[in-house]
Amino acid sequence: MTRPVITFLTDFGPAAPAVCRGVMFGIAPDANIIDISHKVTRYAIREGAGTLLFALRHMPVGVHVAVVDPGVGTGRLPVALRVARGDVLVGPDNGLLPPAADSLGGIVEARAIENRALMLAVVTSSFHGRDVFAPVAAHLAMGTPFESVGPPVNPSSLVRLPVPAAVVRNGGLDTVVTHVLVFGNVTFAGGPADLEAAIGPLAPGRPVRVDAPAHGGSPAVVETTVWAETFGRVPVGASLLMEDSEGHLSLADNQGNAAARLGIGVDRPVRISGA
Amino acid sequence: MTRPVITFLTDFGPAAPAVCRGVMFGIAPDANIIDISHKVTRYAIREGAGTLLFALRHMPVGVHVAVVDPGVGTGRLPVALRVARGDVLVGPDNGLLPPAADSLGGIVEARAIENRALMLAVVTSSFHGRDVFAPVAAHLAMGTPFESVGPPVNPSSLVRLPVPAAVVRNGGLDTVVTHVLVFGNVTFAGGPADLEAAIGPLAPGRPVRVDAPAHGGSPAVVETTVWAETFGRVPVGASLLMEDSEGHLSLADNQGNAAARLGIGVDRPVRISGA
Amino acid sequence: MTRPVITFLTDFGPAAPAVCRGVMFGIAPDANIIDISHKVTRYAIREGAGTLLFALRHMPVGVHVAVVDPGVGTGRLPVALRVARGDVLVGPDNGLLPPAADSLGGIVEARAIENRALMLAVVTSSFHGRDVFAPVAAHLAMGTPFESVGPPVNPSSLVRLPVPAAVVRNGGLDTVVTHVLVFGNVTFAGGPADLEAAIGPLAPGRPVRVDAPAHGGSPAVVETTVWAETFGRVPVGASLLMEDSEGHLSLADNQGNAAARLGIGVDRPVRISGA
Repeated sequence: MTRPVITFLTDFGPAAPAVCRGVMFGIAPDANIIDISHKVTRYAIREGAGTLLFALRHMPVGVHVAVVDPGVGTGRLPVALRVARGDVLVGPDNGLLPPAADSLGGIVEARAIENRALMLAVVTSSFHGRDVFAPVAAHLAMGTPFESVGPPVNPSSLVRLPVPAAVVRNGGLDTVVTHVLVFGNVTFAGGPADLEAAIGPLAPGRPVRVDAPAHGGSPAVVETTVWAETFGRVPVGASLLMEDSEGHLSLADNQGNAAARLGIGVDRPVRISGA
Repeated sequence: MTRPVITFLTDFGPAAPAVCRGVMFGIAPDANIIDISHKVTRYAIREGAGTLLFALRHMPVGVHVAVVDPGVGTGRLPVALRVARGDVLVGPDNGLLPPAADSLGGIVEARAIENRALMLAVVTSSFHGRDVFAPVAAHLAMGTPFESVGPPVNPSSLVRLPVPAAVVRNGGLDTVVTHVLVFGNVTFAGGPADLEAAIGPLAPGRPVRVDAPAHGGSPAVVETTVWAETFGRVPVGASLLMEDSEGHLSLADNQGNAAARLGIGVDRPVRISGA
Repeated sequence: MTRPVITFLTDFGPAAPAVCRGVMFGIAPDANIIDISHKVTRYAIREGAGTLLFALRHMPVGVHVAVVDPGVGTGRLPVALRVARGDVLVGPDNGLLPPAADSLGGIVEARAIENRALMLAVVTSSFHGRDVFAPVAAHLAMGTPFESVGPPVNPSSLVRLPVPAAVVRNGGLDTVVTHVLVFGNVTFAGGPADLEAAIGPLAPGRPVRVDAPAHGGSPAVVETTVWAETFGRVPVGASLLMEDSEGHLSLADNQGNAAARLGIGVDRPVRISGA
């Protein structure tokens, strides 16, 4: 018998996840709780969804709790999603869970979390991580049947984040930052075929230009780089535009952090063109 | 047989707690060590005491080590406190442990930690977390009798932090910040009855004013807000004054971090009046 | 049967270590993975080596994975080192592992990590922590024979960081910061005998002067302090120069963080003289 696995991702910062861990260990004393991250930017659902997507494929089969949730205390639904690989994802119905659920084979069954017997005795309006999601996840990890969490929900009715598109326009590709990976690699909507439709064949070493106009409080950024297949093709410290392991366009620094250097984050509109 | 539980809170920052964890696992290989926080502000005993109080009620019964300790190397006593719920708290006798001990049913027995056989072979003058508290906690978690740690101490002789009071004066309530909760809710000494004694009945929606004069390096803050029962009664981003789950006055932002926005921390004097 | 121990140190920051933990738990479900630190300064091999050295002596016998690695994707070798205490250290051959290996009794056998069957199916060029080091460590923790990781390497051929020397010159000691300990104590190359060779007998209370000329972007620092045996010999907040538990010269603040106060880090050249 191996320990039941629970993974855990939030935007809570340092002390609140510990309280949730305490609640979970009270119900599932031998659980192996694997913290994914509690440093997701507060309320940044897309960033949390990306971190979850990146991590879950490498996690053992288990129950995965994720809470990045501006809507706590409002009408949004707490949900549990059973996926094809055998995992259960637990969290708010706000777009956070579906991308990772899709990467684990897709949603087989979705249910609203309504069974008060699986929650803490007192459910506050402000800390559903502790009062709802943590205890429900721990009960599921201990073998409570999935059906007992609450009534079925049509998976197609779950909230999904809009999928950003890459659009060919005037000899360039209008796209957007969809994710910032560990080590600062910046992922864009669209793949090499989209970029080739805009600027023609991508031979290794071809110069390209990445324009991020001023956005929110962030100043405009222009990065001139090259198309390359691997980090080894550019000097240490230099940037490159490449295809990442998922088939998306990715801007990275060889032994550096491109996102930090350029001040670029998720949802930033970007235009890629020939240079 | 479930694993013995050890929880762990310090002001040590990143690497030092790992060394203490190594020491504990060397003595108690199957322990379930639950980190509460290692980001307590250095030497901030009241802040550490508040975080411990907030967390321990949600932790499984076990041994709880807490170290926030400007006095290491001086005459202050290392102590172990057995509480009514069945837990043991281990740490310095400087006020850090009693509030959490009280919340677990109160201190049943207190002992000075003096038994060198339960400590590391070499006890340095600067790292009692590693040399004294971690090994003693791990031995207790493994079943070493509580009495073996050292001679009894009268619980009433333990150091306790002064309890800040709320005082009605000139039609307002002079109080102080006693705790900053997760998500930035600011807790004050005193409850609704104290505030009503100062300014009269607290009807929902009643405007109130929170004044924090300049203090240390922090500039004066004036916040005009409303008395409300729940977050849902004010718009997203707006603040409210409410009664928290412990019966204390609490200033919070709906989906925001009031403490960070206002730059207010523990021990800050505050006056609450009608607006 | 106790759980197999795996310790884990990187310069990865928050989310990437979790992915590696997921990989390790997939292979070694009952492992006790002890995080040492993931906040090593990016690519700071000497800092990582010092943190590892400081921590491993207090860790249970096990497999220790450490990754601080500017050379990933280049020709540097992934290695596994078996040491006299019974541990195995896993990481890049770039100087990170040998100091800790020496402190655990010395290297008994070294091997290059080449067995693809012990790695993830896809090995990327940029994330050897996940694809190579984590799975190899987990297989070793599960009992895979050490010899199976790959061919032997002559331990004397392993990359070692240059050992900084303390040099007596013109009535002072030219040395360098070799480590910053937890709580900000600054360790220098050389011991009391070296300093006495430069400035004569070190009586308790003798004034000494520590000069750190401007270096990189850091301004010059001059600290006048005293030679003392223990923190208790100087007032709270004052600094002292002392011999640390390893026999090295160490500058520390009583209840303070000398490294942070002075802005001094690893590799900073320093001159110590009489004052």
